[in-house]
Amino acid sequence: LEVRYNRDSLLNGARKLFSSSKSFSNTNNGVWKYFDLLPIERRESIVSLGEEGNTPLVKLNSFDDNLNLYVKDETRNPTGSFKDRPNTVGISKAIELGAKKVAIASTGNASGSLAAYAAKAKIECIVAVPEDTTMSKLIQVIVFGAKLVKVRGTYSDAFNLIKESCKKFEWHNLTSVSSANPYQIEGNKTIAYELYEQLGRHAVPDWVVIPLGAGPLLVGIWKGFQELFDFSLIDKLPKLIGVQASGCCPIVRAFKNDETEVSPWEKPPQTIAQSIADPLTGYSQDGTMTLSKLRESKGIAESIDDSEMIQSVEMLARNEGIFTEPAGASSLAVVRKLKRHGIVQRDDLVVSIVTGTGLKSSETFERMIHDVPVIDPDPDSLFGGISMTS
Amino acid sequence: LEVRYNRDSLLNGARKLFSSSKSFSNTNNGVWKYFDLLPIERRESIVSLGEEGNTPLVKLNSFDDNLNLYVKDETRNPTGSFKDRPNTVGISKAIELGAKKVAIASTGNASGSLAAYAAKAKIECIVAVPEDTTMSKLIQVIVFGAKLVKVRGTYSDAFNLIKESCKKFEWHNLTSVSSANPYQIEGNKTIAYELYEQLGRHAVPDWVVIPLGAGPLLVGIWKGFQELFDFSLIDKLPKLIGVQASGCCPIVRAFKNDETEVSPWEKPPQTIAQSIADPLTGYSQDGTMTLSKLRESKGIAESIDDSEMIQSVEMLARNEGIFTEPAGASSLAVVRKLKRHGIVQRDDLVVSIVTGTGLKSSETFERMIHDVPVIDPDPDSLFGGISMTS
Repeated sequence: LEVRYNRDSLLNGARKLFSSSKSFSNTNNGVWKYFDLLPIERRESIVSLGEEGNTPLVKLNSFDDNLNLYVKDETRNPTGSFKDRPNTVGISKAIELGAKKVAIASTGNASGSLAAYAAKAKIECIVAVPEDTTMSKLIQVIVFGAKLVKVRGTYSDAFNLIKESCKKFEWHNLTSVSSANPYQIEGNKTIAYELYEQLGRHAVPDWVVIPLGAGPLLVGIWKGFQELFDFSLIDKLPKLIGVQASGCCPIVRAFKNDETEVSPWEKPPQTIAQSIADPLTGYSQDGTMTLSKLRESKGIAESIDDSEMIQSVEMLARNEGIFTEPAGASSLAVVRKLKRHGIVQRDDLVVSIVTGTGLKSSETFERMIHDVPVIDPDPDSLFGGISMTS
Repeated sequence: LEVRYNRDSLLNGARKLFSSSKSFSNTNNGVWKYFDLLPIERRESIVSLGEEGNTPLVKLNSFDDNLNLYVKDETRNPTGSFKDRPNTVGISKAIELGAKKVAIASTGNASGSLAAYAAKAKIECIVAVPEDTTMSKLIQVIVFGAKLVKVRGTYSDAFNLIKESCKKFEWHNLTSVSSANPYQIEGNKTIAYELYEQLGRHAVPDWVVIPLGAGPLLVGIWKGFQELFDFSLIDKLPKLIGVQASGCCPIVRAFKNDETEVSPWEKPPQTIAQSIADPLTGYSQDGTMTLSKLRESKGIAESIDDSEMIQSVEMLARNEGIFTEPAGASSLAVVRKLKRHGIVQRDDLVVSIVTGTGLKSSETFERMIHDVPVIDPDPDSLFGGISMTS
């Protein structure tokens, strides 16, 4: 069997498609399309894995009929999370500044990403993760050849260790938190530029919903929208919603208590959403900065439970074919909660940032999976087998 | 800390970037850019996850100085493998033909992909995999909500079961092998179109290297190049190299024995390269078709060992920041072997297709990982810890 076409119409199609003078290989629609708006001096400094960003903006029709709801699908970045945006900018700047070694503290996504960029740049990369980081988050780090250690304690312990070690050994700190490296915020702001273009250059979201650890993603997105406003390209600003897991939510707690400063989360994080489980111990000023930007936008902070995240992971997978980690679905889960509370309202234009792929959280999903029927190879057994699955 | 810019230069940059009249959200550089060359009648039939294809073509400088070697990085497709190309075409056609349920036999990548497209299309999807398929290949299938069974036996048993069941229950067969569904070949041919554009519309590769199960990818790529030749867009055709794992290589065996027909592989597959472990029992004519296209191109077939694949996985990860599964690296591993044998020669233009991400083969890589040092959070322990890692 082979598909055959009318040759003339195929030939006409080919002529039309392949006649443009623009060379395909020079097309870059990703982060580096915005080179002129990024803090890199020379294009030769750029370290890219090919099109970071330029991720799909997907309208969700099945979630809530009364909302104008989109997800920005950051699972589609080169290493599977939005962290490729700050890292492509951060490592390019590091190279431009003559860095010899780079280092990072990470809950997994940021280090898997940085390890890939460091490999591409042929520069040594040192990674510190909290002791309980699951294996599926570490495979990239190891395969990309970074030097990896697990640190006894929480993410905060890894964060402070890398900060101190970078000073002592003169490594370049690429931890993706504002106070560790300001250049990486600049990668995050490109999400605002893309939303502006994808929404047709006029509609500004009423709400942009963002999962938060320390919050560099929120700080970056806010900066991007502020620039667009300053350039008179948009005439209003979105309100930002920051989301944390109930089991570790220092920024949400400060917001709800009307505090001006965020204080560290004292207890060990209790959540499956590893990527946003940041107690901020020792650098709570990063949380305070995030909180101040959030308030500047007239936004809010809210926490949700693991079970709500899992529900949203399933909703997104089963309706849209998008597979995200629990933290990535937190920005969707919270929309339902805030709609119920009357904060997000009918007809609001809402964009939820879905931050990273579920393929690096296999331990979480393996636990959710019921027994798969094992059958003999005959049609009736197959029919029986699939009737057993939900 | 915050990055600040000269406001005038930033404003000029923004004007330049955002003044184009072309709406960003309407840009599609992927498979559906070639709509006029694909067998779908109406654009409304298209089921897309947003930009299938348009994957990076990466020059490898560190692999062999004397080769002009590229990899086509298919790990960058929506669900992590080239299978998104045949599936976006295949399911769109299924919808156009009025299919109510789709079914597939798969070693993992194809079903993870199809499950996502079926979710997007809101159509029921039935998946049969060989009993020994690892969990990390099945997570997508389950999360995307497909109905999954494991079949006692090899991939061939799953293949024949789906074929028979589709007849019996009137399901639409989307197994990505030519004899099961010819439309999916059409998705694969877009790789040839992209190579043509990415190489600057004049250079035709001397060799295109392709991992083979039954070989629909090779059949599709050959078709694409033949069309370009027929349209007088290129003036020569590439030679194709088909690669299989030593532990299951029916097509390579037939090639080396100068046979005109491929016969099934009798023993159980012995390889970590699950994605290409296809014994062809019951549909060896698909292998015969692949072999005939390969010979038509004046190409060759070669097998390699698991250890050579793993070496190439590491080389690609550590030099280029690309993480592929063992089968995906087989197309790179074989280049070294064929160079040694004098078949691939100095200055040849070679493109190796890297078929799928390593994130769905975590079991394989977890086995490779040495103990990660666990340290106390102080710089000297960190320094000691990273000295222990290779």
